[in-house]
Order: sequence, then C-alpha cells, then structure tokens
Amino acid sequence: MQPRNPDYRSRVAAILGNANFIRELGLTFRDCGPGWCETLLPVEQRHWQQDAYVHAGVQGTIADHTAGCAAATLIGADELILTIEFKLNLLRPAVGELLRCRAEVLRPGRSVVVAESWVYARQGETEKLCAKATVTLAALPKSAPP
Amino acid sequence: MQPRNPDYRSRVAAILGNANFIRELGLTFRDCGPGWCETLLPVEQRHWQQDAYVHAGVQGTIADHTAGCAAATLIGADELILTIEFKLNLLRPAVGELLRCRAEVLRPGRSVVVAESWVYARQGETEKLCAKATVTLAALPKSAPP
Amino acid sequence: MQPRNPDYRSRVAAILGNANFIRELGLTFRDCGPGWCETLLPVEQRHWQQDAYVHAGVQGTIADHTAGCAAATLIGADELILTIEFKLNLLRPAVGELLRCRAEVLRPGRSVVVAESWVYARQGETEKLCAKATVTLAALPKSAPP
Amino acid sequence: MQPRNPDYRSRVAAILGNANFIRELGLTFRDCGPGWCETLLPVEQRHWQQDAYVHAGVQGTIADHTAGCAAATLIGADELILTIEFKLNLLRPAVGELLRCRAEVLRPGRSVVVAESWVYARQGETEKLCAKATVTLAALPKSAPP
Repeated sequence: MQPRNPDYRSRVAAILGNANFIRELGLTFRDCGPGWCETLLPVEQRHWQQDAYVHAGVQGTIADHTAGCAAATLIGADELILTIEFKLNLLRPAVGELLRCRAEVLRPGRSVVVAESWVYARQGETEKLCAKATVTLAALPKSAPP
Repeated sequence: MQPRNPDYRSRVAAILGNANFIRELGLTFRDCGPGWCETLLPVEQRHWQQDAYVHAGVQGTIADHTAGCAAATLIGADELILTIEFKLNLLRPAVGELLRCRAEVLRPGRSVVVAESWVYARQGETEKLCAKATVTLAALPKSAPP
Repeated sequence: MQPRNPDYRSRVAAILGNANFIRELGLTFRDCGPGWCETLLPVEQRHWQQDAYVHAGVQGTIADHTAGCAAATLIGADELILTIEFKLNLLRPAVGELLRCRAEVLRPGRSVVVAESWVYARQGETEKLCAKATVTLAALPKSAPP
Repeated sequence: MQPRNPDYRSRVAAILGNANFIRELGLTFRDCGPGWCETLLPVEQRHWQQDAYVHAGVQGTIADHTAGCAAATLIGADELILTIEFKLNLLRPAVGELLRCRAEVLRPGRSVVVAESWVYARQGETEKLCAKATVTLAALPKSAPP
C-alpha cells in the first residue's frame, strides 16, 4: 500500500495526540507503517466495567481509533478520516495490565477504507486476543466536512 | 416483556454505578422499564475526538452499556449480562452539550438477547440522532463466568 | 425525505426486475415510497437450510436488496446504489409460507446512505420478526463505477 | 483447535449437502480441517445483481454457510450450529467465473463460536478478495432447538 502523504507518521501522531478522549483514555502510539498502526493502553481500574474486565467501550474506542490511524497512513495531507461504522466482537473477558491494538487496512479505497483491528490483553507473560473489529471509514477532503 | 427480577431497577442502577469506566465517562441513569433503558451524558471537551465531535468510542460505549442495562431489566437476579458483539453506525457528527441514549430489547432470548441503541445529540433546542447500534448480549449464570 | 428522481418507482421496479439473483429467488415488489420499500418472498423448500428454516443467506439477500431499493427511492436518476456492508441479526428461526421485508432509510446521506431492514415470517395468521439488518450503501454516479 | 466429533468431515459434507438453498446456489465443498472450511461457487449469470456483479446476498450466503461449516468441524455429534448474526463488508465488485470462500474459527467457545470468512473472486489467472465477513454462531444441543 502506498501512502499519498510522505509525512504520514506525524499525521498519525497528531490524530492520537489531538483527540481529547484518546489522551484521556491513556492510549499511546506504538508504531505504524503504510496501511497499519499499533497502539498500547496501560490498563487502569478506571477502564473496568462492573465485573472487573476492561469495558467493551474501551476496547471499541481503541479498535476504532487505531483503525482510523491505519487509514490515515494512506490518505492525502488534505484529507481527514471519519468512521462510518464499526463492529466489535468480544472474544474473551479482557483481563490484564496492558492492551495492545493492531489495525490493518483491508481495502484502501479512495473514499471508503475498510480496516480491521485486533485487541490483545497482556497478563504477565501471556497475551490473548480479546476482541476483533471491522471498521468502515470515509476519507473526506478537509474542505468538505460532513 | 416480563422482567424475571422484580427488583430490576436497582440492578440497572448497580450496573451503571458499579462500572468504573461508565462513572469515569459521566454517564447517568435517566429511566428504565421492562426491556428498555435511557441514559444521559453531559458532553465535556474531554469526550471529543480530533475534530471536536464526540468520539465514536464514547458513543459506542454508551450504546453498548445502555443496551446492557436494557437487557438487565429482563434477566434473573442470579444472571449477569455480557456483550457478545456490537455494531455502531455513525450517522452524523455528534455535536452538542448532551447525549441521550435509548436502548430497547428487540429479542429477549433466554441466553442471547439482542438490543438496539439510539444515540441523540442535543444542541440548544434541537436533538438529532447521531448513531445507531445493534448489540448482541449473553445472559449467563453468575456462577458460571465466561 | 425528498426523492431527487420523480420517477423513483420505476427505478425500484427495475432494480428488482433486473437483478438476476433476485428474480431467481422469487422476491417480488410490494410497495415503496420516499425512503422505504417493502418486498415479499413466497417461501419454497428450495429456500431452506439443513434444519428446514429459511436460510440466513436468503434473509440476508432480501434484507440487503430491499434496503438498496429503499435507498434507490432517494437518489438521482444518474446515480446507482451499491452495498458497502450489511449486518444481519437472526432473531428467530424463519418458519412459514411468506417472508415480508420492510426497509427504511435511517440516514439519507449524499454519498453514504444507511438503511434498516426487518424480515418477517408469516405462518398462518401470525407474522413474526425473524431478522433485522443494518445496511450501509454508497450512492455513486453511474459514470464512475467502483 | 480440537474437534469433539472425530467424524467431522462427514458432518460438514451433510451440512453442505442437506441445505436446499446451498444446493440450489451451487456451492460445493473444497476442503476442511479442525476450525476451517473452504467452498467453491462456479459463478453463473443467475447469481448476478442488476449491474452484472455477483449479488451481495450470494456472497453473504456463502460466507455465512462456510463459517457454519468451519464451526461444525469443532462441535459435538449431538450439537447443531445456528447463525446468531453476520456482518459482511463488500470490498470490490465480485466479477469472475469462480468464487472461493475460506472460513476460519476465530474463537471456538462452547456455546458461542466466532468465525471469519473471506470471499475471493477468480477471473482468469487472478484471484481477488471481494468480501469479508464476521459470523457469530451458536452451538446448541440437537435436543433443544431454538
């Protein structure tokens, strides 16, 4: 996959750094390349739902946002990415001290981008896949907001 | 729809009050009845994504959690609710000072419950539908965690 | 919702009549209006899966196609509709002699249209909701195929 | 992944052979193993939608059914598989003379199985991914139908 913006890494950094809710959550950048991105979330008790697992909404947030970053590695400097829809399957209770999310673009369309995200929970030495998402995104000119 | 737990309202209150991430987010209870629930989120800047709209992850979180509350109005006192999967369509940028989420159970199965959630954004006097979710949930005995 | 093509009914009829797989299936037009469409499928044994229920794929097909017709009531005469993605929840085994599908546009965007479909199975005097779909569609100029 | 039914191959053959709509469609078995299955569909004009691509409903049907076969490689001889929900992203117009579908179980739960399906279209020497599905299935005792 070919990035249209050579400076895509700083674009991804901006999407992670400038999104208030993502900073609030504590999600950090791990790495990215053309068509993919990885993020990390050090789990805190504030991320839990009522049964002491990481809330599905936290997993959905990082799956969606990391997919947006993966898509952003491919768009032009004059475009922005918005989520059209996402679907998240919770596969196992997310228990552990660190979540890692990897997102990959499955279909780099000009106006519609489809990406997938895998959310892994690390507990001690073991990392388990706890959620999988499919994310459909729109690439829009910055000058034509939705 | 018939609640199996006559004290379902306090169960819903507990699910909202005991989920750390939900308290952290600021989601509050509005009302519920057999098979439905409504919640409110006073929007703060910390809920935004990079373009000053409420983050899709925030909308996904409240759509999922309110659906879980709607499902919880129908389950037995010895059961708990876990999300199997959810799918969220973002329909409009969520702009405004208050989100309202209404969730309704579409299919009250014994072990699998399907619910729908509508997320509305209020700006001044106008309330607009900004997201719609379908949520598939499992009703499990508390004694047999996943 | 405002149709941009005053002759939208014949457009919908064409989408139903010109799609080979839809004719093959036996799906027929019931009615439509701006932003909605209804279709009927007289159930035959050839529509069954291995347990004598109507196959999920049949339900998915009519949910998707009827949603496309609902979206087609709103687009211009020079545009066509393609499905980006759809999600179908099977709520009850589909048993009976007639399926009715109603699709409604939830969000009539210029380039992205979101619709919902309800699939009902009629057995004798009773009609039950057996599936619910959310369908995301693209409205594209006929001159710029995907 | 461990099959609980040593005779899983004949079970998968039965699911493909006994489903009327699947025979009608023309879907054939290619191969399977523990947790996966592949099927083939020789494309005919009757599978088309109105723009001469394979209908999304055909792709959804084979994605769903092949996922059911993949799940069936893992269940007990006294269980059956029903689809709870599926979500299909159409990535490219499906053009060509043969569709191949590969399904893999992502999470082999006892009662809920999550699988993924990839639909490829072959045209001449080239095979392209044209759709991707996530399928959530229930494994139920044959004695307790839904």
